[in-house]
Amino acid sequence: MKTELINYLSQFVTENRIKQFDKVLQNRTRYVTVALENIYQPHNASAVLRTCDCFGIQDIHIIENYNAFIVDEAIAMGSSKWLTLYNYNTEEDNTPDAIKSLKNKGYRIIATTPHTHEIELENFDVSKGKFVVFFGTEMHGLSDHIKQNADEYLKIPMFGFTESFNISVSVALVLHHLSHKMRNLSINWQLEEEEIANLKIEWLKKTIKKSDSIIKKFQKENQ
Amino acid sequence: MKTELINYLSQFVTENRIKQFDKVLQNRTRYVTVALENIYQPHNASAVLRTCDCFGIQDIHIIENYNAFIVDEAIAMGSSKWLTLYNYNTEEDNTPDAIKSLKNKGYRIIATTPHTHEIELENFDVSKGKFVVFFGTEMHGLSDHIKQNADEYLKIPMFGFTESFNISVSVALVLHHLSHKMRNLSINWQLEEEEIANLKIEWLKKTIKKSDSIIKKFQKENQ
Repeated sequence: MKTELINYLSQFVTENRIKQFDKVLQNRTRYVTVALENIYQPHNASAVLRTCDCFGIQDIHIIENYNAFIVDEAIAMGSSKWLTLYNYNTEEDNTPDAIKSLKNKGYRIIATTPHTHEIELENFDVSKGKFVVFFGTEMHGLSDHIKQNADEYLKIPMFGFTESFNISVSVALVLHHLSHKMRNLSINWQLEEEEIANLKIEWLKKTIKKSDSIIKKFQKENQ
Repeated sequence: MKTELINYLSQFVTENRIKQFDKVLQNRTRYVTVALENIYQPHNASAVLRTCDCFGIQDIHIIENYNAFIVDEAIAMGSSKWLTLYNYNTEEDNTPDAIKSLKNKGYRIIATTPHTHEIELENFDVSKGKFVVFFGTEMHGLSDHIKQNADEYLKIPMFGFTESFNISVSVALVLHHLSHKMRNLSINWQLEEEEIANLKIEWLKKTIKKSDSIIKKFQKENQ
């Protein structure tokens, strides 16, 4: 039924758009994902979304304990439209919920923070299973909760006077390095057929004007 | 004489500071350098300086044809103090001067721009000799002059809808990847002894209050 719906909806968009969807979908992954804790500067939040799209990272987990996540569309360049954003913002401290939910889905919890057992980015073992990388707020870094509950700790080696990167730079460096490694391993990092179909329907709906009434028509014809 | 001056000046700073200088100097390089053409957003310019310091890149070439390069110190975090900045801003078009000067110093000219003969970042041959990577302005990318006069063209592979990165992200990705590769090759990427001594004197002078009169005293005593 999903295939029929995709075929039906595809009539309403250009052939080039469909080709683009298929190409992007072949490169999308949920093997690597990102969690952002209290990022509040819109230019950082937006640059992160754009970077995720560029590297084929589909899922972004957004934890808002005391800062609201605001996107600057001029910087995000429409990338948020194609990504799956998970929001954690109903409790006072939403980090435990996010960790629990991600652990239940089988993700290794990786904190980008100094630690006695930290691993250098270049030595991180991508093949050991899917993972989520946590990045903290601009001013204070990650919360104690994530620092104490991570499975592994990641460090980007630095050689200068400055001891830290801008947050959007950190995210890009980590995602570039690890997603490149992932693509060169013979592991199952691609989306499953079902996930691809679901995303394609979602993207088609976002692209087509009045998609709701078109889908209703399709459903009526195919009852 | 330089060693004596360094020893003399070292009395006026803490031992930890000297250790930091030595550690940073061991990791500094002029094998990889960066040229920025008309970058005008202070947060981008500043993030680039910070990134260069972090990856041990000593030299930054700043071409100002129609945009002034303005640093936001809150983002640069003092990194510009320790870097060598070369400014090209006396002519209407300063790009030819910059290219000429860098070619004369033996640098391969690398443009980060789409090209029929572009090389993917991961396939770029770092071992072939020292190189300078040119990055263009936020809006229009690199000028035609550099596009036509580069030796090689570099591309960061992307897999999403968005076709470009934020400039500070591009610079960080390229420098991280290529400087990491460089450090793992058995090539001469470190500064020469003379360069290390010169930089150390410069950094000591910047750190010590009233360093000019201290140096005069030293010179008088050692005439």
